[in-house]
Amino acid sequence: MTTLPFATRLDNVETSAIREVFKLLGKPGIISFAGGFPDSDLFDAEGILAAAQQALRETPGAALQYGATEGYQPLREQLARFMAEKGVSELTPEQLLVTTGSQQALDLLGKTLIEPGDKVIVEAPTFSATIQVFRLYGAEVITAPIDRDGVCPEALAALIAEHRPKLVYLIPTFGNPSGAILSAERRLQVLRLALQTQTLLVEDDPYGDLYFDAPPPPSLLAMATEIPGSRAWLAHCGSLSKVLSPGLRVGWLIAPPTLLANAVMCKQFSDAHTSTLAQVTAANYLASGVMSARLAQVRQAYALRARAMAAALRHTAGEAIAFNEPAGGLFIWARLTGANGKLTDSQTLAQRAVERGVAFVPGAPFFASNPDAAALRLSFATASVATIEEGVRRLALAL
Amino acid sequence: MTTLPFATRLDNVETSAIREVFKLLGKPGIISFAGGFPDSDLFDAEGILAAAQQALRETPGAALQYGATEGYQPLREQLARFMAEKGVSELTPEQLLVTTGSQQALDLLGKTLIEPGDKVIVEAPTFSATIQVFRLYGAEVITAPIDRDGVCPEALAALIAEHRPKLVYLIPTFGNPSGAILSAERRLQVLRLALQTQTLLVEDDPYGDLYFDAPPPPSLLAMATEIPGSRAWLAHCGSLSKVLSPGLRVGWLIAPPTLLANAVMCKQFSDAHTSTLAQVTAANYLASGVMSARLAQVRQAYALRARAMAAALRHTAGEAIAFNEPAGGLFIWARLTGANGKLTDSQTLAQRAVERGVAFVPGAPFFASNPDAAALRLSFATASVATIEEGVRRLALAL
Repeated sequence: MTTLPFATRLDNVETSAIREVFKLLGKPGIISFAGGFPDSDLFDAEGILAAAQQALRETPGAALQYGATEGYQPLREQLARFMAEKGVSELTPEQLLVTTGSQQALDLLGKTLIEPGDKVIVEAPTFSATIQVFRLYGAEVITAPIDRDGVCPEALAALIAEHRPKLVYLIPTFGNPSGAILSAERRLQVLRLALQTQTLLVEDDPYGDLYFDAPPPPSLLAMATEIPGSRAWLAHCGSLSKVLSPGLRVGWLIAPPTLLANAVMCKQFSDAHTSTLAQVTAANYLASGVMSARLAQVRQAYALRARAMAAALRHTAGEAIAFNEPAGGLFIWARLTGANGKLTDSQTLAQRAVERGVAFVPGAPFFASNPDAAALRLSFATASVATIEEGVRRLALAL
Repeated sequence: MTTLPFATRLDNVETSAIREVFKLLGKPGIISFAGGFPDSDLFDAEGILAAAQQALRETPGAALQYGATEGYQPLREQLARFMAEKGVSELTPEQLLVTTGSQQALDLLGKTLIEPGDKVIVEAPTFSATIQVFRLYGAEVITAPIDRDGVCPEALAALIAEHRPKLVYLIPTFGNPSGAILSAERRLQVLRLALQTQTLLVEDDPYGDLYFDAPPPPSLLAMATEIPGSRAWLAHCGSLSKVLSPGLRVGWLIAPPTLLANAVMCKQFSDAHTSTLAQVTAANYLASGVMSARLAQVRQAYALRARAMAAALRHTAGEAIAFNEPAGGLFIWARLTGANGKLTDSQTLAQRAVERGVAFVPGAPFFASNPDAAALRLSFATASVATIEEGVRRLALAL
């Protein structure tokens, strides 16, 4: 037996630890808080069917032929409008590249910017696939501390000064997994910092539309007008995955012109373009004007489940599990406190929990360094209120 | 103004020269032989609509939710069956990764295998995006000579011995742009060479189904059973783009287990998975069993156009343009001979041709080194016979 001579970049990454958790989910009757998925039952399958039918009946050439790497122009226009409704002014469709999910936007940022030995800064904790994709391009991933108001600007400033990173990656709104919301004041501070230090800021915003009560502060991209010049140091990743459907794989990257041009060039050699069937379908759906009404329903459903999970955790686990009640997104980020002599190791708890019939993701994979062994992520997105209550009961028993 | 510090890997590539040609195509009334596209009018839009409707009505969860990185299992099964019908035995769905077009398969091969300074061998000429994607990962691209029977095994053996490449990339059947068909005897020689020298062979086969008369020799993957052990040194890229629709962006990679596992890991961080809407639609279409009848129609249409273009070239350009009449695929690869004092520079001819109202791609971008300035690629795929005849007439005038 011989082996192929793989590239050394593979030595820096590993297949997602979260994927491994899913292998445990085959057990019958298990309740899963492990996924990062939205709820399929909330997808507007009929609306998407109508949009796909329109695509294939009215514009079969566009929906089935090769398309521009930059994206299907009517979709770029719809997405620019969607962003404008969220307060992003002066955005032209040409400033936006359609990507195959926002995961591809992250990959293109890595490909265009990072080379071995470069440093990047991410939040601790953050989206684990981001850590991996930047490492795949050879980055050293530095972590910045967060609290419930998101990343701490003073600490971030010190880290930028020390490490001179290629980029700083933030999920400012309903962070995954933290649920944290970067405050409006900190948003301005972070934008100012990017401008002053000439450091590229990457804003990943898949969850911003999933708020439960009041809307969160506008995105960094929307607020960049308040810090003139900061837009030149800002890339924004958006996605239809959490608000419409992940299966379409439609995301987008908004970035300064030279960065966008390089991302387009790299995308040309990555997958030529995003599925035109998916793009035309998404464009038709957005043009139909039903998105905001659907989003209101989706928000309501997730709000109900989030509150049910929070109440059940307080009721059954008491002081043994600490968490901030989320104001949006799909997750509760929690910590085992050890109160009353209970477990503090979430990995051990995860194994016991599966035996009791409930699954979740331990927090470690969300940290690029110094993992918090007591942390865990609980998704409330895909279970009914009754199932959530039963799942939390099982979790408390395992604890 | 400041600029972002881009990665040095971008210095090795440029946006496709072929894309630049397309900017000239806005001129009204221009006849284009420039595209690499299949003909939209030959797409089975109705059949694909039925498959998409079935996807969204019967399995909306699967079509709209996140899916496995490896691909939608029923699609992997259908694709394994499709390959089995083409003589590939002992192929399980698990040996096949669904990719976002076969372009992504090439990107994943680059990502998993190539690091700066590595060498790869490609045919001269070959698919220009392959040259670019391998260069993006830092490869030095070496060219192997071909004739009308494809790559010359003796020359390839010498180049492998000299350069010890990470991989050898071939389009053995109806090469783009050459139209060459690697003979059955050479296929066996090349497989033996890969095994003997322990060199990974990458077979790209987007055109193999588009033959005009007799089927070409079986793919390297199908013939690998005749050279025991050679399958361990063979990766195969397939695509639905030329036989069903490029807009779906459904391709696949078949590779030895360790290579496939690494490609899956890299795909996880590239785009998570290929659009499930596109995958479920493709699976339903393949399961409907109409593909072989459609392919027969498509073959007939392209055969007619290829013959019309060949006849028109012989009739109007005579000895000034030399070419081998293709037996399949989408292209005629030709050379300006300079006979009767005519032009020998295809770049100059391309400019004059656009003025006369016809466009084609000069041959240079298809060469990784030592471009043949007299070569040109003419696509017969998207024009009617009458349009082809008029286009060739204009080309002869420009010449």
